[in-house]
Amino acid sequence: MSHQPHQRVDIPLGERSYPILIGPHLLGDDALLAEHIAARNLLIVTNETIAPLYLRPLEAALQDHRTASVVLPDGEQYKTLDTMSRIIDALVSERMNRDAAVVALGGGVIGDMAGFAAACYQRGIDYIQVPTTLLAQVDSSVGGKTAVNHPRAKNMIGAFHQPRCVIADTATLHTLPEREYRAGIAEIVKYGLIYDPVFFSWLEANVEPLLERVDAAVIHAVRRSCEIKAEVVGVDEREQGLRAILNLGHTFGHAIETASGYGNWLHGEAVAAGMVMAADLSERLGWLPGVDKERTVTLLRRFGLPVEAPRIGAERARELMGLDKKVLDGKLRLVLLRSLGKADVVSDYSGEAFAATMRTHFDAAA
Amino acid sequence: MSHQPHQRVDIPLGERSYPILIGPHLLGDDALLAEHIAARNLLIVTNETIAPLYLRPLEAALQDHRTASVVLPDGEQYKTLDTMSRIIDALVSERMNRDAAVVALGGGVIGDMAGFAAACYQRGIDYIQVPTTLLAQVDSSVGGKTAVNHPRAKNMIGAFHQPRCVIADTATLHTLPEREYRAGIAEIVKYGLIYDPVFFSWLEANVEPLLERVDAAVIHAVRRSCEIKAEVVGVDEREQGLRAILNLGHTFGHAIETASGYGNWLHGEAVAAGMVMAADLSERLGWLPGVDKERTVTLLRRFGLPVEAPRIGAERARELMGLDKKVLDGKLRLVLLRSLGKADVVSDYSGEAFAATMRTHFDAAA
Repeated sequence: MSHQPHQRVDIPLGERSYPILIGPHLLGDDALLAEHIAARNLLIVTNETIAPLYLRPLEAALQDHRTASVVLPDGEQYKTLDTMSRIIDALVSERMNRDAAVVALGGGVIGDMAGFAAACYQRGIDYIQVPTTLLAQVDSSVGGKTAVNHPRAKNMIGAFHQPRCVIADTATLHTLPEREYRAGIAEIVKYGLIYDPVFFSWLEANVEPLLERVDAAVIHAVRRSCEIKAEVVGVDEREQGLRAILNLGHTFGHAIETASGYGNWLHGEAVAAGMVMAADLSERLGWLPGVDKERTVTLLRRFGLPVEAPRIGAERARELMGLDKKVLDGKLRLVLLRSLGKADVVSDYSGEAFAATMRTHFDAAA
Repeated sequence: MSHQPHQRVDIPLGERSYPILIGPHLLGDDALLAEHIAARNLLIVTNETIAPLYLRPLEAALQDHRTASVVLPDGEQYKTLDTMSRIIDALVSERMNRDAAVVALGGGVIGDMAGFAAACYQRGIDYIQVPTTLLAQVDSSVGGKTAVNHPRAKNMIGAFHQPRCVIADTATLHTLPEREYRAGIAEIVKYGLIYDPVFFSWLEANVEPLLERVDAAVIHAVRRSCEIKAEVVGVDEREQGLRAILNLGHTFGHAIETASGYGNWLHGEAVAAGMVMAADLSERLGWLPGVDKERTVTLLRRFGLPVEAPRIGAERARELMGLDKKVLDGKLRLVLLRSLGKADVVSDYSGEAFAATMRTHFDAAA
């Protein structure tokens, strides 16, 4: 196979600029890979779920390179320094030099770990991302964040390390479980909400083709999401300010994920319910028109995403969000919507409105 | 105590520029520390040898900061990912945020590990070096290299991460064992050889005050070494070319260290004998006048450093240097001397001259 039709987003980062290539069957496209992967020696990092599906085809398409692979166990619980050191071990055993590259084949966990291993190995070698989940294609492809978890805190150990190239093969999404696919869509809706009302409207008009995973629709959604993230991250590479708007729904979502036990709510599901809460608070503050909050709820619901938080109790949720009982008027910095398509990081919102949103969504109905 | 007299070298790296402060008793100088350490929350990383000597005085001088400390076992064998993760554990337990900083109090091993932990924690927080060995003061203070060892290769896992500030307290050198102190001097001689004939002459004129660790002489030697390393690294921060001249004597030295078992020859001692071999080969090639090779040997000998390699056999040494028997005419890139004070990285030297140097220094006398 060679040169599948695809779209391209260029991430402008000076000498670390790189392309994101988006289209079906790209990981089997030997000509495309040859064009974009300069390193001769490659270590492919993947997991036990993805390897049986895509490792062999990727190796075949990379036949002009010397490839080795390491297959890790699947799951967030393995995103540790210990597992990362297995990647380093493989790089050492395979005598990979500074001019070798790591290829991350899998979802966000694989991308984060393989990217971090590449960042550290000999103080930094190249890496290429081949994201196989929708979440990884729209989220991990841009931003250069890599990390592993500490037993007591997520993503606590990591580096900023940009990939040389991202190969987002949209055909791999067809093997993604329905629930995981929909959770990825939550992040796509987020990009519309925080940055682009036109894209939001496009999503409203394309719910069915997206749910059916029609190539053209998926490609556009992935592409536009990457573009938006690139614009946001581009002005704030080291995460000082604007970049925080990418966390719309995440603070509320964090409380939901933690209270429910990690894994019971998928990250994207918690973000969906969290975005509804952010929209609700934005409406209470008089920023977001009620009709736009309703559009948000309706769109998420049409994508089969949860729009109601679990009734974990507002008090409990406050604690999980880092708001201690003792600091009753303490305020979190929250990402809220000034309007549909425009997010802002604010801490000077009304505490009463915040409390009302918390009660309404987290407390059991009276 | 406040504001000890000291000298200052500024390392120009744009927004990551930092000062190296050099002088006696600086680690007890509360005013100086307050001026140069902006972070309020500090984790001091040190080892079991250094802690009883300097941890308490440093904490006392940092009384206006919130400090915590972690005391690691002493030795290169502990420079591992596992030990590094103990630093991360301490950062997490002490709830250190992104605005906290790591203070590395100790020699090169502590500096490398603490710097790497700082580079990774929350994808990068500040760190401050307080080097307590001569080698660390003249070598680790500049260059931003941090790392831990892999079981099969040194410094294989790391990052480039610049300190915010280096406090080189020359009074700490008085507690350094004589042999370790002299090994540090080998690297100082190296700076003269590769870059500065005037500094080399100054060293020839100041052997006694340096061996007696007289403040003024030590301060000048540390200062000039840092300046030279900064100039070399400044044009080559990511180690592409010129920076390699800092490895004068290191390739020969590596064979010596490995063959003798790590620890039997100190790194600086192996570098001293290795520099003699580099000078010898440079002379055979007609680049370095015989008289300048003799000056090199004489100076190292006056500092009590070894100028003869152990008789490990030229063939064995070739293998340890990465030259396989099968590639008889394979050539290593070596750092050689075009003249005293001017080094160059070369691979187009005469193979015969190289073989002669190897035989003369590594084979048993006939």
